[in-house]
Amino acid sequence: MSEAAQTLEGWYVLHDFREIDWTAWNDATPEARNEALAGLNSFVAKCEEVEASKEGSLALYSIVGQKADFVFMHLRETLEELNELETAFNKSAFARFTRKTYSYVSVVELSNYMGQPGVDPMQVPEIAARLKPILPKSNHICFYPMNKKRDLSDNWYMLPMEDRKTMMRSHGMIGRGYAGKVKQIISGSVGFDDWEWGVTLFADDALQFKKLVYEMRFDEVSARFGEFGPFYVGNRKSRESLNDWLLS
Amino acid sequence: MSEAAQTLEGWYVLHDFREIDWTAWNDATPEARNEALAGLNSFVAKCEEVEASKEGSLALYSIVGQKADFVFMHLRETLEELNELETAFNKSAFARFTRKTYSYVSVVELSNYMGQPGVDPMQVPEIAARLKPILPKSNHICFYPMNKKRDLSDNWYMLPMEDRKTMMRSHGMIGRGYAGKVKQIISGSVGFDDWEWGVTLFADDALQFKKLVYEMRFDEVSARFGEFGPFYVGNRKSRESLNDWLLS
Amino acid sequence: MSEAAQTLEGWYVLHDFREIDWTAWNDATPEARNEALAGLNSFVAKCEEVEASKEGSLALYSIVGQKADFVFMHLRETLEELNELETAFNKSAFARFTRKTYSYVSVVELSNYMGQPGVDPMQVPEIAARLKPILPKSNHICFYPMNKKRDLSDNWYMLPMEDRKTMMRSHGMIGRGYAGKVKQIISGSVGFDDWEWGVTLFADDALQFKKLVYEMRFDEVSARFGEFGPFYVGNRKSRESLNDWLLS
Amino acid sequence: MSEAAQTLEGWYVLHDFREIDWTAWNDATPEARNEALAGLNSFVAKCEEVEASKEGSLALYSIVGQKADFVFMHLRETLEELNELETAFNKSAFARFTRKTYSYVSVVELSNYMGQPGVDPMQVPEIAARLKPILPKSNHICFYPMNKKRDLSDNWYMLPMEDRKTMMRSHGMIGRGYAGKVKQIISGSVGFDDWEWGVTLFADDALQFKKLVYEMRFDEVSARFGEFGPFYVGNRKSRESLNDWLLS
Amino acid sequence: MSEAAQTLEGWYVLHDFREIDWTAWNDATPEARNEALAGLNSFVAKCEEVEASKEGSLALYSIVGQKADFVFMHLRETLEELNELETAFNKSAFARFTRKTYSYVSVVELSNYMGQPGVDPMQVPEIAARLKPILPKSNHICFYPMNKKRDLSDNWYMLPMEDRKTMMRSHGMIGRGYAGKVKQIISGSVGFDDWEWGVTLFADDALQFKKLVYEMRFDEVSARFGEFGPFYVGNRKSRESLNDWLLS
Repeated sequence: MSEAAQTLEGWYVLHDFREIDWTAWNDATPEARNEALAGLNSFVAKCEEVEASKEGSLALYSIVGQKADFVFMHLRETLEELNELETAFNKSAFARFTRKTYSYVSVVELSNYMGQPGVDPMQVPEIAARLKPILPKSNHICFYPMNKKRDLSDNWYMLPMEDRKTMMRSHGMIGRGYAGKVKQIISGSVGFDDWEWGVTLFADDALQFKKLVYEMRFDEVSARFGEFGPFYVGNRKSRESLNDWLLS
Repeated sequence: MSEAAQTLEGWYVLHDFREIDWTAWNDATPEARNEALAGLNSFVAKCEEVEASKEGSLALYSIVGQKADFVFMHLRETLEELNELETAFNKSAFARFTRKTYSYVSVVELSNYMGQPGVDPMQVPEIAARLKPILPKSNHICFYPMNKKRDLSDNWYMLPMEDRKTMMRSHGMIGRGYAGKVKQIISGSVGFDDWEWGVTLFADDALQFKKLVYEMRFDEVSARFGEFGPFYVGNRKSRESLNDWLLS
Repeated sequence: MSEAAQTLEGWYVLHDFREIDWTAWNDATPEARNEALAGLNSFVAKCEEVEASKEGSLALYSIVGQKADFVFMHLRETLEELNELETAFNKSAFARFTRKTYSYVSVVELSNYMGQPGVDPMQVPEIAARLKPILPKSNHICFYPMNKKRDLSDNWYMLPMEDRKTMMRSHGMIGRGYAGKVKQIISGSVGFDDWEWGVTLFADDALQFKKLVYEMRFDEVSARFGEFGPFYVGNRKSRESLNDWLLS
Repeated sequence: MSEAAQTLEGWYVLHDFREIDWTAWNDATPEARNEALAGLNSFVAKCEEVEASKEGSLALYSIVGQKADFVFMHLRETLEELNELETAFNKSAFARFTRKTYSYVSVVELSNYMGQPGVDPMQVPEIAARLKPILPKSNHICFYPMNKKRDLSDNWYMLPMEDRKTMMRSHGMIGRGYAGKVKQIISGSVGFDDWEWGVTLFADDALQFKKLVYEMRFDEVSARFGEFGPFYVGNRKSRESLNDWLLS
Repeated sequence: MSEAAQTLEGWYVLHDFREIDWTAWNDATPEARNEALAGLNSFVAKCEEVEASKEGSLALYSIVGQKADFVFMHLRETLEELNELETAFNKSAFARFTRKTYSYVSVVELSNYMGQPGVDPMQVPEIAARLKPILPKSNHICFYPMNKKRDLSDNWYMLPMEDRKTMMRSHGMIGRGYAGKVKQIISGSVGFDDWEWGVTLFADDALQFKKLVYEMRFDEVSARFGEFGPFYVGNRKSRESLNDWLLS
């Protein structure tokens, strides 16, 4: 095996960002709106049942700004199940009031840069739980995809394993400084989507996203090697809050 | 804590750029137009009430060129409130005559590069006021997002704190040369949107935007490290002027 | 004042590129087409009156290729007037047969790289005229926006003023070689639009655009420091030719 | 002949990604849906007949995420046949429920970096078969286009043949480590589409795509010289499964 | 005159790429389709008459993949004539079934890098013919725009004339190796469109496009200095074949 760090993978992840066609929504009859909301409600309820049985997880957040109105973050054991969730939503009565804006396909990943020699990581319960996580119910979500740069003298993939390990440890230390404030889920997307990783952060105080990402930006692994895609930030929408959001 | 400069944050900011569907607007019945204008008027009036109670602020400007017809710049204590403002507008009768064109999510920020040791900046009333500003009623607005570059030898985030501090001071001196002519609001967007900062300038003479930004471009911090997104420039629209603008 | 070259500014400029919805146009009734053409005619006639009174200027050209069908290049004393021109067109009967494709906001600019010490440039009548120019009625237009590069060792804004001055003089010499063949209007857009300058060329022989721009590309200021946006080229449309163009 | 590696070419390839207009589909009458499905079925059946006669091949996969709902990967002897397939689909009753999202034109290619001196590769039956392959019926597909970089000191095309050969051999070794897990089809697109190669991977376990592409990324040929376009990942759709997918 | 190579220019060129709105086409009545086809036929016939009188030329090819359904490549003496061709097509009955996808404006160009001292190139009949060429009726077309790079140490425009000449000669030698297989038309677009040149290749065997462009990519002038835009490849459509293509 090459110099590539070993990785552990868990559930597949689909971030499914959508916008609402507000004109169509505002024009719809009360019956059509009720039917659509019932469809959305039942779609979310089914996802919650799957989560309750620990066979997947769902996060539903409204998105601030024009990039999207909301995001479903789905976790499942297989790519087929993610595809079925998309199709089920697309066939639901609420879908006609929405349009696709962005999506991201990845798989929950733990890199082994921090692994201990002689320890089988899958035997560590905390690691197994992190690979198939039930998503937190925090007030806020932050999502962004990212690459490690390959630009002349700033080429992550040409560095010796030892250097990468050292930098990743220091990087991880910053993350640990936010323990209890920000929960971080890293998913790998090499071979699945246009960037190498997806990063999803959860926090009750959105300001902690900024503090964490900004502090990390001065860390060599981000400063020299981080390449960042679009950022999405949002507010939690419980199933109970959907009617209020869309009808009031 | 790392080499990251400490920052102070105030109100969250949403720049919400929209264009008008002029064909639909021109075709609408007088009743539909009046209803739409009443909705816009009431939306703006509510924002002005919030501003009067110092719980937020609004700037409304028409935009020159095709990138947008107008922008709402909203300031609020929380991301949830910004989201509610979007939804309220989207449900209003005027929204159907508009389309989204661009938005930007950030938070008013003061960086501590210029801080004095031993002084708690939140105890300085001028600083507290700058974090939760009532937006000026200047004739013109200029908005652009920006990054600090991370490109091989031109990597801001790899510089020692001391160098960054020196450059930021010199940068600030240029800004101070425009005191009374240009008011500048910096908002941080790391973790919230696709660039690291949003810059919003206000001036009665639009030419001062060009003078200021051009002069700064020769300053090392911009010349070597500034990376700029799209620029928007506009003319103030008071609530009283909306009817004239849209109906005459 | 810093190392920034001093600049002189005149009229604000809006390049307003539009395409025609040919299917809607072809389907329109003769009455609707006549009304639309009358609206276009009257819009252009009003601009010509403003030009006659030397309070602004208009160039109207059809564009070759799919980027646009035509462009209005408007010059006015203020940004508010440019905004009013946009709104007036958008409310006109012809606008419904068009769609926006690109625009550019700038201000006529003369840089002082070529200034003589001890001479107040505003006292030179030729300079004053160039800042508020009546646009030529040449057969062809060429428009493109541009930046000066800031890329590692090719960073215009880090060069000493003296070097920039020398290069700009040599650059100007090439332009002067096309005197009588190509008329060039430089407008500054720092703070107003996404590039730093707009360049508008006028010529009776379109080939001279290619000769001029190609020759300049070997000049160090362009070769090392020029960064170019989209290019638009077009053919003059007098008010008298509009009916023929659209109806025949 | 120059330093260019010799290449062998086989069938032309069209990757044809489409999305479904779900609102139109959900609104269609049962008759219209049945007619559309019959059209899709017959289109796929004809492609399967061509495959059975070894005159081409088809892979049909649904795509995970919003980039597309499904992809046809067509192989044929000529570009004309690929064009006819597109037109036939566009004229079919199912096409109205779809929209184009992305496509890629290429030709199956074997590079001769690994050739043995004195051996005519077309006489090697395994090579002939790889140039006109019947696509595997694996559970998953992964497609991405790519370039070899030409960026200052990281310029693949300026390297001596011998260095390229050495790197390609090591690259090939990684691929061989996935024999039995991932089947890889390389197609050349220089002169046909926007990147230099298309890479299509097939596997029963989608995770192997990530393992393979990630491991290769540390190989010098990818780390220093690989430039990657969008990634698509999907799940196999047999003809028998189409009704279930679209109707249930 | 500067270091710029002298160029000779001939006819102006418009590449006009369009896609077909297949749903509208499939839904049209037989009468509407016949009328549209008659319009297309007559448009092409008129272009063929102009070609017969040697006042211009037309190539019509279907395009493989989703970038376009077909391209008109028009050659004419003036930009006005190209504009009239666009307008004539836009007013034709077939146009409503099409949408614009891409276009390119340029002028047939011969660079004088290969000129002989003391020879007036316009006196060489072969050169005059190449400047106003009747386009070949080959089976296939390939089009792409390109630039010469200006990137730090890889800056074509900063090279001494002598070096550029040497490289261009070697580049030309590769092209000559494809004589009889690929016909190449170079058109200059500096000042007219977004890249510096358009390259149009014609061949009966499409594979020769790949062989030629790939071989050239190892030549220093392409390897270090070539920057390539989108590639289009297509199949010839004679006027006689239009009915079959669109109706069958």
